[in-house]
Amino acid sequence: MTSGAGQLLNPLLGSRALGEIFSDRGRLQGMLDFEAALARAEAAVGVVPAAAAPVIAAQCDAARLDVAALGEAAALSGNLAIPLVKQLTALVARQDSDAARFVHWGATSQDVMDSGLVLQLKAALPRLEADFARLIDTLAALAARHRRTPAVGRTWLQHALPVTFGLKAAGWLDPLLRHRERLAELKPRLLVLQFGGAAGTLASLGDRGIAVTEALARELQLAAPALPWHAARDRVAEFAAWLGLLAGTLGKIARDISLLMQTDVAEAFEPAGEGRGGSSTMPHKRNPVACAAILATATRAPGLVATMLAAMGQEHERGLGNWHAEWTALPELAIATAGALEQTADMMAGLELDPVRMQRNLQATDGLIMAEAVMMALGGKLGRLVAHDRIEAACKLAAAEHRHLREVLAADPVIAAELDAASLDRLFDPLNYLGSAEAMTDRVLALYQAKSQERR
Amino acid sequence: MTSGAGQLLNPLLGSRALGEIFSDRGRLQGMLDFEAALARAEAAVGVVPAAAAPVIAAQCDAARLDVAALGEAAALSGNLAIPLVKQLTALVARQDSDAARFVHWGATSQDVMDSGLVLQLKAALPRLEADFARLIDTLAALAARHRRTPAVGRTWLQHALPVTFGLKAAGWLDPLLRHRERLAELKPRLLVLQFGGAAGTLASLGDRGIAVTEALARELQLAAPALPWHAARDRVAEFAAWLGLLAGTLGKIARDISLLMQTDVAEAFEPAGEGRGGSSTMPHKRNPVACAAILATATRAPGLVATMLAAMGQEHERGLGNWHAEWTALPELAIATAGALEQTADMMAGLELDPVRMQRNLQATDGLIMAEAVMMALGGKLGRLVAHDRIEAACKLAAAEHRHLREVLAADPVIAAELDAASLDRLFDPLNYLGSAEAMTDRVLALYQAKSQERR
Amino acid sequence: MTSGAGQLLNPLLGSRALGEIFSDRGRLQGMLDFEAALARAEAAVGVVPAAAAPVIAAQCDAARLDVAALGEAAALSGNLAIPLVKQLTALVARQDSDAARFVHWGATSQDVMDSGLVLQLKAALPRLEADFARLIDTLAALAARHRRTPAVGRTWLQHALPVTFGLKAAGWLDPLLRHRERLAELKPRLLVLQFGGAAGTLASLGDRGIAVTEALARELQLAAPALPWHAARDRVAEFAAWLGLLAGTLGKIARDISLLMQTDVAEAFEPAGEGRGGSSTMPHKRNPVACAAILATATRAPGLVATMLAAMGQEHERGLGNWHAEWTALPELAIATAGALEQTADMMAGLELDPVRMQRNLQATDGLIMAEAVMMALGGKLGRLVAHDRIEAACKLAAAEHRHLREVLAADPVIAAELDAASLDRLFDPLNYLGSAEAMTDRVLALYQAKSQERR
Amino acid sequence: MTSGAGQLLNPLLGSRALGEIFSDRGRLQGMLDFEAALARAEAAVGVVPAAAAPVIAAQCDAARLDVAALGEAAALSGNLAIPLVKQLTALVARQDSDAARFVHWGATSQDVMDSGLVLQLKAALPRLEADFARLIDTLAALAARHRRTPAVGRTWLQHALPVTFGLKAAGWLDPLLRHRERLAELKPRLLVLQFGGAAGTLASLGDRGIAVTEALARELQLAAPALPWHAARDRVAEFAAWLGLLAGTLGKIARDISLLMQTDVAEAFEPAGEGRGGSSTMPHKRNPVACAAILATATRAPGLVATMLAAMGQEHERGLGNWHAEWTALPELAIATAGALEQTADMMAGLELDPVRMQRNLQATDGLIMAEAVMMALGGKLGRLVAHDRIEAACKLAAAEHRHLREVLAADPVIAAELDAASLDRLFDPLNYLGSAEAMTDRVLALYQAKSQERR
Repeated sequence: MTSGAGQLLNPLLGSRALGEIFSDRGRLQGMLDFEAALARAEAAVGVVPAAAAPVIAAQCDAARLDVAALGEAAALSGNLAIPLVKQLTALVARQDSDAARFVHWGATSQDVMDSGLVLQLKAALPRLEADFARLIDTLAALAARHRRTPAVGRTWLQHALPVTFGLKAAGWLDPLLRHRERLAELKPRLLVLQFGGAAGTLASLGDRGIAVTEALARELQLAAPALPWHAARDRVAEFAAWLGLLAGTLGKIARDISLLMQTDVAEAFEPAGEGRGGSSTMPHKRNPVACAAILATATRAPGLVATMLAAMGQEHERGLGNWHAEWTALPELAIATAGALEQTADMMAGLELDPVRMQRNLQATDGLIMAEAVMMALGGKLGRLVAHDRIEAACKLAAAEHRHLREVLAADPVIAAELDAASLDRLFDPLNYLGSAEAMTDRVLALYQAKSQERR
Repeated sequence: MTSGAGQLLNPLLGSRALGEIFSDRGRLQGMLDFEAALARAEAAVGVVPAAAAPVIAAQCDAARLDVAALGEAAALSGNLAIPLVKQLTALVARQDSDAARFVHWGATSQDVMDSGLVLQLKAALPRLEADFARLIDTLAALAARHRRTPAVGRTWLQHALPVTFGLKAAGWLDPLLRHRERLAELKPRLLVLQFGGAAGTLASLGDRGIAVTEALARELQLAAPALPWHAARDRVAEFAAWLGLLAGTLGKIARDISLLMQTDVAEAFEPAGEGRGGSSTMPHKRNPVACAAILATATRAPGLVATMLAAMGQEHERGLGNWHAEWTALPELAIATAGALEQTADMMAGLELDPVRMQRNLQATDGLIMAEAVMMALGGKLGRLVAHDRIEAACKLAAAEHRHLREVLAADPVIAAELDAASLDRLFDPLNYLGSAEAMTDRVLALYQAKSQERR
Repeated sequence: MTSGAGQLLNPLLGSRALGEIFSDRGRLQGMLDFEAALARAEAAVGVVPAAAAPVIAAQCDAARLDVAALGEAAALSGNLAIPLVKQLTALVARQDSDAARFVHWGATSQDVMDSGLVLQLKAALPRLEADFARLIDTLAALAARHRRTPAVGRTWLQHALPVTFGLKAAGWLDPLLRHRERLAELKPRLLVLQFGGAAGTLASLGDRGIAVTEALARELQLAAPALPWHAARDRVAEFAAWLGLLAGTLGKIARDISLLMQTDVAEAFEPAGEGRGGSSTMPHKRNPVACAAILATATRAPGLVATMLAAMGQEHERGLGNWHAEWTALPELAIATAGALEQTADMMAGLELDPVRMQRNLQATDGLIMAEAVMMALGGKLGRLVAHDRIEAACKLAAAEHRHLREVLAADPVIAAELDAASLDRLFDPLNYLGSAEAMTDRVLALYQAKSQERR
Repeated sequence: MTSGAGQLLNPLLGSRALGEIFSDRGRLQGMLDFEAALARAEAAVGVVPAAAAPVIAAQCDAARLDVAALGEAAALSGNLAIPLVKQLTALVARQDSDAARFVHWGATSQDVMDSGLVLQLKAALPRLEADFARLIDTLAALAARHRRTPAVGRTWLQHALPVTFGLKAAGWLDPLLRHRERLAELKPRLLVLQFGGAAGTLASLGDRGIAVTEALARELQLAAPALPWHAARDRVAEFAAWLGLLAGTLGKIARDISLLMQTDVAEAFEPAGEGRGGSSTMPHKRNPVACAAILATATRAPGLVATMLAAMGQEHERGLGNWHAEWTALPELAIATAGALEQTADMMAGLELDPVRMQRNLQATDGLIMAEAVMMALGGKLGRLVAHDRIEAACKLAAAEHRHLREVLAADPVIAAELDAASLDRLFDPLNYLGSAEAMTDRVLALYQAKSQERR
């Protein structure tokens, strides 16, 4: 069998668990699980002989297939289902030629392939949800633990105002709570049987199409759709979009951690470990390896989501080529996003913080970071714009002369008239200018608690 | 003021209503509505003098702004809020210099701009929902009316089996019902106030940040978030993804109609109309103008969604450039998708069908389209694969010799032994091989009814 | 080793040859080829002992590596080069501990990985160029053979005017000639050594960095860059864009063939073949399998190109995550596009045409397709707009009454006054209204000839 | 007329000059310039009366059009050309009804629209090229001026090794030289007439199609294509890809500058200016406004390029919807990228550097940044891996005990045996470990010089 772009990078850039699920073998087994369940369901409904079902099901094991031959044959038939059904039929025929007549009865290639995919997704979700829960719990703990740890707030990559590290963690947690809600909402739309036969009417099952559909869905523990979704791809595209949204949030977290881990900032660090993040040539380096992997996924995800959306225009009762485009895009996106999730959960669980350096960085601008605090105090007295302009001038002076802002302000008679030394001391303590940071952190934690209880 | 890529194409490629809402003026008014509400909320909470609020609110009218100057100033300040607040403060100051001190009190540029955007989205949703409802009702009526109208089912762009036109309509309707469900789910996550002050702590409001947040949310009839979402962009990215999913489904409908409207197929047509779809040079042409507009949106949407997802990695407490990327991407996507929705609703409301041509096309393959019907009948007797191979040979012979398949089959003694003339007659009537098409259509219509009742 | 999204689909959706080149093993061998050449170049320049080079080079064989261990280690180190260098050093040390000291001397991980990638691309290009030449020659032959074969010209998916099939083929050929030109232009920018050491200064080589660079480039038969391109990714992004443009053109060809192969059109067909394009359930189906594969690539390519462009913002002297994003995106795009190219070349080489059906389709509109011919003839006499409106009315009448347009025109006294029966006969022969179709075809063929001679 | 997503943001996020060129009026005037030239060319060739040309040309002024009516009519006709030709014909008819008969003679809507677009691109290129030249010259001067200015080299956002600021500038310059080369190569493929009539055969011009094509191309100073490119969109898609590549490089520059401008790094700054980069609430802020605008474009470009690539699959002789998708995507991409280019040129021209801070940052890691220098010196003596491990341990010790690496090394007897104090002094001076940085800078500058001379 020819080889693709390789699997070597999966431990770094993807999830091993989902890599197994979406491997060639996983794909084939998903399809075979469908064929086995189909035989059972049709036997139960009386569409095929009861005796055929166990014989067929017994052969539905990917290990029995000639995988290389399947790949070659797919290039002629245009999909994997046709040669798989042929191989399966031959296997069954060796046991029981009567049973072999009923393999794949009433189904079409897309039924097998789409339902097989849904079964793979169904197997993948618990893995993904476990890492999800782990990350959410970790962030909640981090937010709680650091609800009063002062840190530099940065906007436009510039020091802005003091915040707390707890608020930062709460800010990462909050969208993840929404992602979990979204996943709960979309799951019933995603974990749905595909079954329509050649053109979506189940014509070959006569008037028993719906009965087989219901039985088959029960067999596979999937929902039965109102009608087949051969050419209505919103179910899988929605899941891709969800993965893209999740990858975006994970990328935001990794972006933040990697910026905090800059040698020049040094406030937070990926967990250290033997052989982790070293350089082939620079002995002193400690590279943000997890961030790199997560950001790689965040860079790739938008293009893969775009592919899934672009593939939605599937023609008539079955698309041409656009359906094929999904076959690689969705598994890749799922493997990569699950990998990024796992890396983020690991990274945050072992995150190292340096609150001393945070404090030092808060002082690095000689008081400029407290400028708004002073301005607001003055604003109530002099008006917001006047205060703004006066403080802006003081900031410029302080920066130009490398003096502390507090000192420049104390030297300004207009300001000194309004704010005495004690007031300035108070205004220049970051802990006195955290506004609603703690209240906000608590609000997110309350949401987290509520959601967690709901789930029990 | 310089001009962008132009507005001329909006009536064709976008929605006029959303074009108004997301116009420059709409954008500014959204921001001013926030400033007015902020003043009222802060007066209510006692953060600013009660007298200031009505004076400020009275100036919050986009018509009073010097728009060109705003654009120029934004190039220096990096956003529109800074010069807007300056102009607004000057306007208020002309009325009451005391009140002017309290303009924009405690807020940051992103509070104004994001909340303004959310207000625009809130105004846009009812327009979009109205067309949505219209399209859904139209498709339900179409599905009901044509639940037994036989039509050619096509897979891979090839004739496959008979279906019904009702089933086709149900297949377009079904994902739209899910899109409506998705919209209902995401709305509470989207229509949410943005309010955090300079670094998301509302520090300048001391301990009254949450109180002002709640009052402001009430003023604007938006939800109050647990904490600001300055750098957590999943709310808007999710809406973008939803628009992308909707555009994908609309594109699928337009793809189908345009294929059915091909001169060579001629089964369905966009509504005709004076001056509609003519050519500048070919007097006989009737172009699928609505399909073109809808497909244009479906082509553009994946890239715009990708932009919104790529923009999610916003740094620290406020992003750099990625937030800016949203400013054009989301409105463009909303205008385009709403336009496509409107065009689809209009197109389907006036859709012209030619059931006679559908019948003719069903006959066009000299019986080949009924091959599966015969195969299934034979399959029960000879086994699926044997029947498949025998019928496939007959199909090739019929095609090669330009004979009707029925005739070839009748001449095959093995087949003739199993199927007599009456059986063949029955097997070659499309209406006898529709399987569960009607039942499926009814299932979707039942879903539609249930959802419609829920909404009342 | 864990498994990715699988390799099973490569024969269908990708190129086997490029699949081999970009396989895990191909990736590792490219890196090892770099290490071997580095040792030789440094020995030649005198940076490492002459004796070390052959010892190192002898171990540079991917078959000697523990591949699974590499994947695991890469998850810790963040790239494959670090563990690969470790394994290689250990292998060399077993032979000669002195030589082992000089493995990877002066290089950084990215030097190995990027140069290895470039070597893979260098190996891939001749395969791609061979299929390219084959496709171009095939299309040129098709254009020449059918320069006067009349066919339906379709715009907006509607019959427009007669064209020739030769012109259609020339229209597919023309952009491919430009793609070949583009490839020739970009190759010197792409096939370029990466070599810069830890931060791109080759500091560890002292003043011999440039000398080693030049020697190494000679060893690998790559160009030496002015400076390393660790964080300037336009070279690989340009190639990705080229692949995207090529995929776009191939997608256009496949779109056209698949539309022509519709049961309802039936003018052109993918080559038939045993087991090719059959359906698992419908014995009469002949599916456009190659078109599906090509269209799948055309659907995936824009997202993959977008990923490569989005990855360009690589930070400082080496990017974080964005470089990682390239590792899968570029090989996948190359494998998929090369596969689509191969499929297109095969498809066009065996394309089956039905000129009789083309003629029949030209007649299918009862003369409407010749409406412009008549209008132009009239236009010179009555004015373009008047003629347009009159003929438009006649077209509508003909369509409404199912009469031939010639008959309706002949019955219109104003038109009959200008055009007698012989004139109408002439005007209704498609061969008389081909305009410059043949001249245009010849122009493209002349370009093809000129380009082909240049290349010899 | 309805309004789009607005023009207000153009001064910030786009180019004013290109905004004018691609405005509604610019679009219409491009189309009218085509119509005027067509009349002249056809008069010259004798296809239309010589007297008609000046009468037609005299009306080809966008100011005479009813623009709002055009937009409305386009929604019915599906493009702007049909109503524009109607309005133009009416205008000409008021002057001379004979001349009016020859308006748009032989052309189709797409001829007008595509050629009009090419004329807009032709007008835009010199603006873009001027900023391009300015940026390239600025970067060359910066590279030359700072060829020995030591600076921190950073990989993975970590301090790696010393580099020079000149090398950084050369690294920004180098890809821009290639982009200029690419633009020169693609221009002849881009600035090409579109002219094919209804289905690309110029049938309505009889045997004079090629003659008119050549004359028209001369009139418009565009190249004449071998055949029309109505449905072969590689010409415009290639330009889009080029814009995407350029945006990627500009994004990389802006990413770097914004990282260098972080409060925590403070090595380089966007030019300051009255009202530039201030915050609405924080008087001390100096925001990287230009970087934000450039990064916004770099974020948007991949999605817009993807749209242009996705739009390439245009059906038969004219596409359905995909052509429409280009109408907004290409102008938006051009306006945004040209704006980013202008912003980058301005930013780099006024870039402020702080070499003192660069020195300070080089010292910030207590010698760790020189670790590789020491390792290489030791490596020749102890072997690369041994040296690597020994130095790595020393680095960890130095970091853990907050000691300078030089001190830790001096205390290690194995190391002290190989490196005396003078050697260590030399090894810890960044200027002694710049490798080929200057030579590389010179190589890029030589390339710049050579390219600049070529262009004269």
